[in-house]
Amino acid sequence: MAERMSIIQFSGTVDKLMAASTLATGAAAMGLEVNLFLTFWGLQAFRKDQIRTNTRFSADFAEFAEPALQAMQAKKVPHWLDTLHGAAEIGNVHVQACSMTMELFGWTLDDLDPLVEGTTGVASFIEEAKDDQITLFI
Amino acid sequence: MAERMSIIQFSGTVDKLMAASTLATGAAAMGLEVNLFLTFWGLQAFRKDQIRTNTRFSADFAEFAEPALQAMQAKKVPHWLDTLHGAAEIGNVHVQACSMTMELFGWTLDDLDPLVEGTTGVASFIEEAKDDQITLFI
Amino acid sequence: MAERMSIIQFSGTVDKLMAASTLATGAAAMGLEVNLFLTFWGLQAFRKDQIRTNTRFSADFAEFAEPALQAMQAKKVPHWLDTLHGAAEIGNVHVQACSMTMELFGWTLDDLDPLVEGTTGVASFIEEAKDDQITLFI
Repeated sequence: MAERMSIIQFSGTVDKLMAASTLATGAAAMGLEVNLFLTFWGLQAFRKDQIRTNTRFSADFAEFAEPALQAMQAKKVPHWLDTLHGAAEIGNVHVQACSMTMELFGWTLDDLDPLVEGTTGVASFIEEAKDDQITLFI
Repeated sequence: MAERMSIIQFSGTVDKLMAASTLATGAAAMGLEVNLFLTFWGLQAFRKDQIRTNTRFSADFAEFAEPALQAMQAKKVPHWLDTLHGAAEIGNVHVQACSMTMELFGWTLDDLDPLVEGTTGVASFIEEAKDDQITLFI
Repeated sequence: MAERMSIIQFSGTVDKLMAASTLATGAAAMGLEVNLFLTFWGLQAFRKDQIRTNTRFSADFAEFAEPALQAMQAKKVPHWLDTLHGAAEIGNVHVQACSMTMELFGWTLDDLDPLVEGTTGVASFIEEAKDDQITLFI
């Protein structure tokens, strides 16, 4: 059975989404399967109507958001969504939406980026993740 | 030996406490033991004098706190503490307070919700958690 | 092979750096190797020019930062960097900088605390971390 990394993507700030998609790329490059479980703000970040326009950074480092964004543009760092798509091209990357969050906010799969394959419950997610090599809460 | 998920509960915001208690429920439903290690703001959130009145959300998403709380009330989402008590009823859930945080802030077990069984040190926590299937920092 | 805990240190707030260095100490005390992978704000926090002057706390708990700092001074809690150095004295602690973050912000190893041994890529980090007992994102 393939080794696997699972990420519970709770946050929806650009810096943490970048971290997650970079970790997904690194894991895929090393031959690990990757499971992304999107919940709460992390699921909101995958809504089509804001996925490309979201410039929210961690409030802890609010005054560094602007210089960080400028550094990213200067270095032509790809958008985190493109990084994630890239990971899905080189490896086995699965993205699932937390069914409870979907219901809470009344969202449907149509509201989300096509990278999101479907919805799943937290119990099913854990049932899989417990056999993983790495499980992270981001 | 039973499989187990451990959570280091560092944050004390309602959204992250909801995430943790929902994960605990999912894990318990799947037959995993659950260890919650409460530290810093996560321990503060279990103080009796604020556990039911805390409406703090992640500052990263401050402007969404109000609509999120309203959605929760409309959907009758239980309080995270009730969700956690529910997890403890269906499964093997243990909640421990970080002894260092207790000492730093001068708190005693009497200050905390009765769900907190006792205090433990970080080294003891890690000694157990290293044999877990999942360990998360929330 | 020795057991090991890996921490992806993404955040650079004092409260989370304290948590990480305390976890590193507990793990080292229990005979686990510790790998710290510093990225983004967590790497910035290791810059020599701010590592001792940083008083940034999680924005989620902004109004508690001052009382928490005062409690730490009253209880003579060591600086998180000293705690981390202590962990490195009793155990096998390795600190690596994320090469992508270094490049993004144009930093060199000379900018960082000497505890940082070198730079490494995220794929190499994951290749190691997948064999760990505990991997945390802080």
